[in-house]
Amino acid sequence: MKFSTHAQSLQASYIREILSAASQPEMISMAGGLPAASLLPVELVRVACASLADNRQLFQYGNSRGYQPLLETLERWQPESTQPWLICNGSQQALDLIARALLEPGDHVVAEVPAYLGALQAFQLSGAALLPLLSSAAGPDLNQLEHYFKTTAVKLFYAVPDFHNPTGRVWSAETRIAVAGLCRHYGVTLIEDSPYRQLRFSGAQLSTVSELYPEQTIRLISFSKTGFPGLRVGAMSGPAEFIALAERIKQATDLHTGIPQQVIIDRLLNHPEYPKHLVQLRQGYHSRYQHLSAELHRQLGAQIEFDPVEGGMFIWLSLKGKSGAQVAARALAHKLAVVPGSAFYEQEAAPEDCHIRLNFSNTDTTLVEEAITRLAKSL
Amino acid sequence: MKFSTHAQSLQASYIREILSAASQPEMISMAGGLPAASLLPVELVRVACASLADNRQLFQYGNSRGYQPLLETLERWQPESTQPWLICNGSQQALDLIARALLEPGDHVVAEVPAYLGALQAFQLSGAALLPLLSSAAGPDLNQLEHYFKTTAVKLFYAVPDFHNPTGRVWSAETRIAVAGLCRHYGVTLIEDSPYRQLRFSGAQLSTVSELYPEQTIRLISFSKTGFPGLRVGAMSGPAEFIALAERIKQATDLHTGIPQQVIIDRLLNHPEYPKHLVQLRQGYHSRYQHLSAELHRQLGAQIEFDPVEGGMFIWLSLKGKSGAQVAARALAHKLAVVPGSAFYEQEAAPEDCHIRLNFSNTDTTLVEEAITRLAKSL
Repeated sequence: MKFSTHAQSLQASYIREILSAASQPEMISMAGGLPAASLLPVELVRVACASLADNRQLFQYGNSRGYQPLLETLERWQPESTQPWLICNGSQQALDLIARALLEPGDHVVAEVPAYLGALQAFQLSGAALLPLLSSAAGPDLNQLEHYFKTTAVKLFYAVPDFHNPTGRVWSAETRIAVAGLCRHYGVTLIEDSPYRQLRFSGAQLSTVSELYPEQTIRLISFSKTGFPGLRVGAMSGPAEFIALAERIKQATDLHTGIPQQVIIDRLLNHPEYPKHLVQLRQGYHSRYQHLSAELHRQLGAQIEFDPVEGGMFIWLSLKGKSGAQVAARALAHKLAVVPGSAFYEQEAAPEDCHIRLNFSNTDTTLVEEAITRLAKSL
Repeated sequence: MKFSTHAQSLQASYIREILSAASQPEMISMAGGLPAASLLPVELVRVACASLADNRQLFQYGNSRGYQPLLETLERWQPESTQPWLICNGSQQALDLIARALLEPGDHVVAEVPAYLGALQAFQLSGAALLPLLSSAAGPDLNQLEHYFKTTAVKLFYAVPDFHNPTGRVWSAETRIAVAGLCRHYGVTLIEDSPYRQLRFSGAQLSTVSELYPEQTIRLISFSKTGFPGLRVGAMSGPAEFIALAERIKQATDLHTGIPQQVIIDRLLNHPEYPKHLVQLRQGYHSRYQHLSAELHRQLGAQIEFDPVEGGMFIWLSLKGKSGAQVAARALAHKLAVVPGSAFYEQEAAPEDCHIRLNFSNTDTTLVEEAITRLAKSL
């Protein structure tokens, strides 16, 4: 069998590989982007699961757009938006549907780097050429962004304005306005991927970029960080004509997202205890973050530095000139799994990056002291 | 927004459209390919659904290859095959993953016509050129097949050897051997799509083509016809190198198929009453088929003809020269939804087809007499 060019060029995900290493005995993993198992709101859907079998129509074929009550819940949740929703198998599938709806091979996509590799893979699979946008604690480099827009026919700008993965950064209000303005001026479609937005544990929530540029933004939301990643249910909204096309592509790729899993998410979102769950989740992640942060300062002192985060799941740890790849490899030998910064770049474009990404949402707090001791040995 | 060429060329599914028409009040639908709601084995998974919440790990991220116990169930079920399995969101996703793993734009795919439109759409979306293979009650035209293999660089041959949709035909043992031989001789990859194979209610089961040509066959199975279409769980097996690549593509498209839905299917397949469910399902469809068949002969007599079927969900009704599209349109006006034969061809290549497809699995038997009376008025 001869494999297609795009499939062959698909880079393996270092993160998926390290996750299998992470399941070895005695390994402590700070590698994945998993929610805390103990904070999964399983009790809130116990009744919903148990009553699935009472309605046999839920097990029959459904609509490609999504389970109607869940679509209506999303509309109630986002009353400011008049744009339609499409339910997907996690927001990862939304990225793939966007790529297939909009990209021709060779089309240009701007993405902040370092970046969530799953997004880059979805664009690569449609043959897109990636334009890396440098970013810092102050936000994305707006001059570089405008330069790209001016000099290249940019098709999409992929952004994670709230608690970016892996850096944890949040765009300022000014950046949001400036990016919306640039996209509008140059007619570029913006993908606002916001899986972590609801995981803010301190500071004030800012408006979404979608609100500032509704006419050509596609917004992705996830139920994997606040609900259940294992169900694979996410959603996107955008201009009606685009959502209609994405629905037809979805139909050709898997007919529709399964109904029982959408029912479980819908019942979770409408459970009277759901707001309390969100509060507890944010408190839990805040305390895990503070614990890890304190331990990093205590054990590693001046050998590392990182910007504080106000939400999300990650600390983007600068090793102050040491190679992230080498430290991650040594850490693995010391039975600690972390992801080196270089894993968040396109393979060919991966720089000598001096960061590692540390997850604080899924790591057992009783193991954090030992984890950082192992990291100290690996520096 | 400018949409991609392949997405724009994706034809809308007449069947999906007629299914929304079919939900109108007083409409009788024989259009869909749905299982009988009353025969869905919901009681066999009641306990499985109720106990989901007892294992919170089922709600966490999982493996792209599939839920391990379900993979092991499939291996036990198919002890003759040593090829690995990949769990997909229904076999529709398997078709899409195959297309993306193997097809370059312009690559040639042979498919028996008329054909399941969902398969043609998946190939079209990857830019493939379709070569229509004529078939009759005697099976696919093997001379035409060899001619295609000889004169064109054919990449894939897509086939539904058991209870083909829409014709209900089953390949003879000789055809299976001949097709395996031709594919082997010309090095063509075969897709054996077998969603209906387990729905045989009379006659003897034949060997799969995969068994005759394991080295380059990709086999698709579905749990939507014997289990629950609403969960969107299917699977494919094939050469290990191919399955490994398809798994990486799946990871980039939606990370993995959801775990709770795989648990429900696994518990169904392993339920001690599952074999009895299959027997009841086949008996139920056999009696529905016989009922419809008798009613067609009684009311329509010499105006129609059709080959008897031994399983599946459909009767492929010849209108003896009358246009299927015109009869289907008139039937809709008489509040009867059926699918015209022309809906099972590529849009540009759709011939003046003189068939309609009638579903017998999902149609309420008490409505069949009235349905055929409406059809009689539409001829």
